[in-house]
Amino acid sequence: MTAIDLNADLGEGFGRWHLTEDEALLTVVTSANIACGFHAGDAATMRRVCALAAERGVRIGAQVSYRDLAGFGRRAMDVPGPELTAEVAYQIGALEVFARAAGSRVAYVKPHGALYNRAVHDEEQAAAVVDGILLAGGALPVLGLPGSRLLEYAAKAGLRAVPEAFADRAYTERGTLVPRGTEGAVVTAAEEVLARSLGLARDGRVTALGGREMTVAARSLCLHGDTAGAVELARRVRRGLESAGLRVKAFV
Amino acid sequence: MTAIDLNADLGEGFGRWHLTEDEALLTVVTSANIACGFHAGDAATMRRVCALAAERGVRIGAQVSYRDLAGFGRRAMDVPGPELTAEVAYQIGALEVFARAAGSRVAYVKPHGALYNRAVHDEEQAAAVVDGILLAGGALPVLGLPGSRLLEYAAKAGLRAVPEAFADRAYTERGTLVPRGTEGAVVTAAEEVLARSLGLARDGRVTALGGREMTVAARSLCLHGDTAGAVELARRVRRGLESAGLRVKAFV
Amino acid sequence: MTAIDLNADLGEGFGRWHLTEDEALLTVVTSANIACGFHAGDAATMRRVCALAAERGVRIGAQVSYRDLAGFGRRAMDVPGPELTAEVAYQIGALEVFARAAGSRVAYVKPHGALYNRAVHDEEQAAAVVDGILLAGGALPVLGLPGSRLLEYAAKAGLRAVPEAFADRAYTERGTLVPRGTEGAVVTAAEEVLARSLGLARDGRVTALGGREMTVAARSLCLHGDTAGAVELARRVRRGLESAGLRVKAFV
Amino acid sequence: MTAIDLNADLGEGFGRWHLTEDEALLTVVTSANIACGFHAGDAATMRRVCALAAERGVRIGAQVSYRDLAGFGRRAMDVPGPELTAEVAYQIGALEVFARAAGSRVAYVKPHGALYNRAVHDEEQAAAVVDGILLAGGALPVLGLPGSRLLEYAAKAGLRAVPEAFADRAYTERGTLVPRGTEGAVVTAAEEVLARSLGLARDGRVTALGGREMTVAARSLCLHGDTAGAVELARRVRRGLESAGLRVKAFV
Repeated sequence: MTAIDLNADLGEGFGRWHLTEDEALLTVVTSANIACGFHAGDAATMRRVCALAAERGVRIGAQVSYRDLAGFGRRAMDVPGPELTAEVAYQIGALEVFARAAGSRVAYVKPHGALYNRAVHDEEQAAAVVDGILLAGGALPVLGLPGSRLLEYAAKAGLRAVPEAFADRAYTERGTLVPRGTEGAVVTAAEEVLARSLGLARDGRVTALGGREMTVAARSLCLHGDTAGAVELARRVRRGLESAGLRVKAFV
Repeated sequence: MTAIDLNADLGEGFGRWHLTEDEALLTVVTSANIACGFHAGDAATMRRVCALAAERGVRIGAQVSYRDLAGFGRRAMDVPGPELTAEVAYQIGALEVFARAAGSRVAYVKPHGALYNRAVHDEEQAAAVVDGILLAGGALPVLGLPGSRLLEYAAKAGLRAVPEAFADRAYTERGTLVPRGTEGAVVTAAEEVLARSLGLARDGRVTALGGREMTVAARSLCLHGDTAGAVELARRVRRGLESAGLRVKAFV
Repeated sequence: MTAIDLNADLGEGFGRWHLTEDEALLTVVTSANIACGFHAGDAATMRRVCALAAERGVRIGAQVSYRDLAGFGRRAMDVPGPELTAEVAYQIGALEVFARAAGSRVAYVKPHGALYNRAVHDEEQAAAVVDGILLAGGALPVLGLPGSRLLEYAAKAGLRAVPEAFADRAYTERGTLVPRGTEGAVVTAAEEVLARSLGLARDGRVTALGGREMTVAARSLCLHGDTAGAVELARRVRRGLESAGLRVKAFV
Repeated sequence: MTAIDLNADLGEGFGRWHLTEDEALLTVVTSANIACGFHAGDAATMRRVCALAAERGVRIGAQVSYRDLAGFGRRAMDVPGPELTAEVAYQIGALEVFARAAGSRVAYVKPHGALYNRAVHDEEQAAAVVDGILLAGGALPVLGLPGSRLLEYAAKAGLRAVPEAFADRAYTERGTLVPRGTEGAVVTAAEEVLARSLGLARDGRVTALGGREMTVAARSLCLHGDTAGAVELARRVRRGLESAGLRVKAFV
């Protein structure tokens, strides 16, 4: 039976502000990418979401980011490698405290937003993220885009490189994501998202924006949780995968 | 032979800004209170100072603070207990990553600035700091003012409470520090600092501002390192203590 | 005909995070307390809300705060007077740019959250806020609690001191607000809020928590706009006041 | 008689941290690029440096930056145009308050660090900066690199575009600055800096890194003031220019 992980970004509020439907999503996903304070995520929120995740047996991942609250980590930054390495390790360490206090541990790392996108192609930043993970210790697996520099360097460094796919994002024919803002970049029709989820999880295949069938190897599907509708969609995706006989299961 | 620890605040720069004479002080002190990013201390600086401290056998302490870069953590804040607890744990966890990467570990906790002062009397905040230390795990010793709520609560929680004294600060007759800004609050004459260091370390005694001789139990002396002159003074204090037959040695 | 102003806190998002129902509230209130970046309010949001307010003829007020995004300005801070004065002026100046660009101007100042509460009693901080307003120039009116140090010092400095009241908050018999967290501190029943609004606006009277009828002079009522329900309630308050023959009109 | 302006970055401390020799530099330069809080510069510092500048008749310029205290504004960021425009206006407005309170006004704008460098080539960001200046009102002159997109767009928008040169930085044969980090990028020998200052100010000429003589039109020379040695060098540059018969005079 094929196993597929479901991951989502969680804990992305800050102080008085809330964004992600943390409690609801934690009943759906098997891996929680928890914000570590650099693009979102204050300490009290990190503690709370780690406790909820641990309680439900959801794996805790460090969703590391550029230091950019004002831009929610969505603005690419030319952070020199050594700074980025230290910042990645800092975030992992901060989250680890709350994961352990909840009886769990940080089980993997996934970069957020602009850092995620940049680490697809940028060799220096991809290497810096991997160095930060090594610095933090524990040889944590890395969740990222198949074919990205990030996963390539992670594997070279002896870390487990876990490829993920997006059922609600359009793909180019080269296997990268169509940038947000481009027409058709985001798939909103629920039925289509469900169909693509199944195609990706069971067959490792998806139709690119131009219409070509492509292979996308993914051990995890990334779901979104920043709207109420997204939560319901996430539930349907999970039920759809399970109905098709797939096993929804964390990758670590 | 009486043993005395020498501690100093280190790593208190931020990005482009530098403040403390980290390298020089690390040749003098036995315990380094390293800033964890909330009042000072970016990730790269934390990494560097941890590496230097570990190399020299200096103990690494988490100098936890209110989240206040603009005020350098010197402005008292009414942070609710649960938030403060989480923020303390966050800082300890972040520093732990760099301490471990350097082959060492976070060996104790010392609050900084306004949090230090507030935790002398404020029951909620003192308890919140202790809760944050417990949350972070490892039962870390706490360095603080003798008679403070902080040390009282730390001891009650089963943590080792380590009292410290200040050779360059005037004491009231109740054993608290004369607030900065008050005339005579800071002792600047080197000879007097040296004499007071010896009195505190060897005899556990100091003359209060009013002239009364007082007992101050201290296992550590806090030195200052944010000026070049302070470094030289710190060196003289250490030599003075050693010449008098005391053993300068970390408390943990 | 008695005139009453309706004010609300607006623009309290930050980057990716949204909080206040800015557009909806701007159809109800006559004065908008716009966040200036210290507790909430990024530059693009400030620009947008100023443009909307100007378009609708709503007065623009600078909602100045402690520098505390993580705590949303709700944590009292011991900011030294000169720092606070400069920070207040900084915020007014930043907002002024967007008010002017929208063809309007900053017409008054209202402190936010913990600074508002502190300036009720704290002489140093109340004076520092007034000094900041004077420093910014233009002799701006100050919106605050009747009987507060803030309004007292504003008046002494020659600024117009505008008292406001809260229809959804309980009052003590001394005319101060019952602190949030105390039972009964917040009035939630819509009918009661409406009745209290009318009592305050028309008669200058409200029933304190203990049951005593009190006089509360108010030229403005503060409405809340951080929930959808609050917007509807605000609309009903405005209609209720107008139906009773009051003129809803900005104070400046 | 040829007139030349001398400008320097000032007010680049933050809270407890100091960097630039503000007082000393203000006796040398005719234009002060004052940090506005995004890469450096807290409100109290802005107030103080504006007062000093006004007292000495030094022009006040808004040194606008990316929002990046941790990176001192030296890390390029992909800030979307509308956000950048609003952030530039915000900074100008904040500084204007202190300039006016000192009896002066913001007389020009100069981007800082990575924003300065990016606005040389990046059309979107150059345009966004110019839009921010227009939004702030007052048609402020822009100080920048000759040939930059920034000055080109400023001129198109009807703003005065003021070219500046660097006596202590090497030039490529295309008239751009040799990037820091490249060998020979920074000219450190005082005699050479003096000679280049004179060549640039009097003749509008400088020798590029490859040896070729080039024309560089500059109405202002940028001096550096973040070290004690730099202050002394700045003084010598000014004396050298005056001895050669040039008039050191602000451009606005």
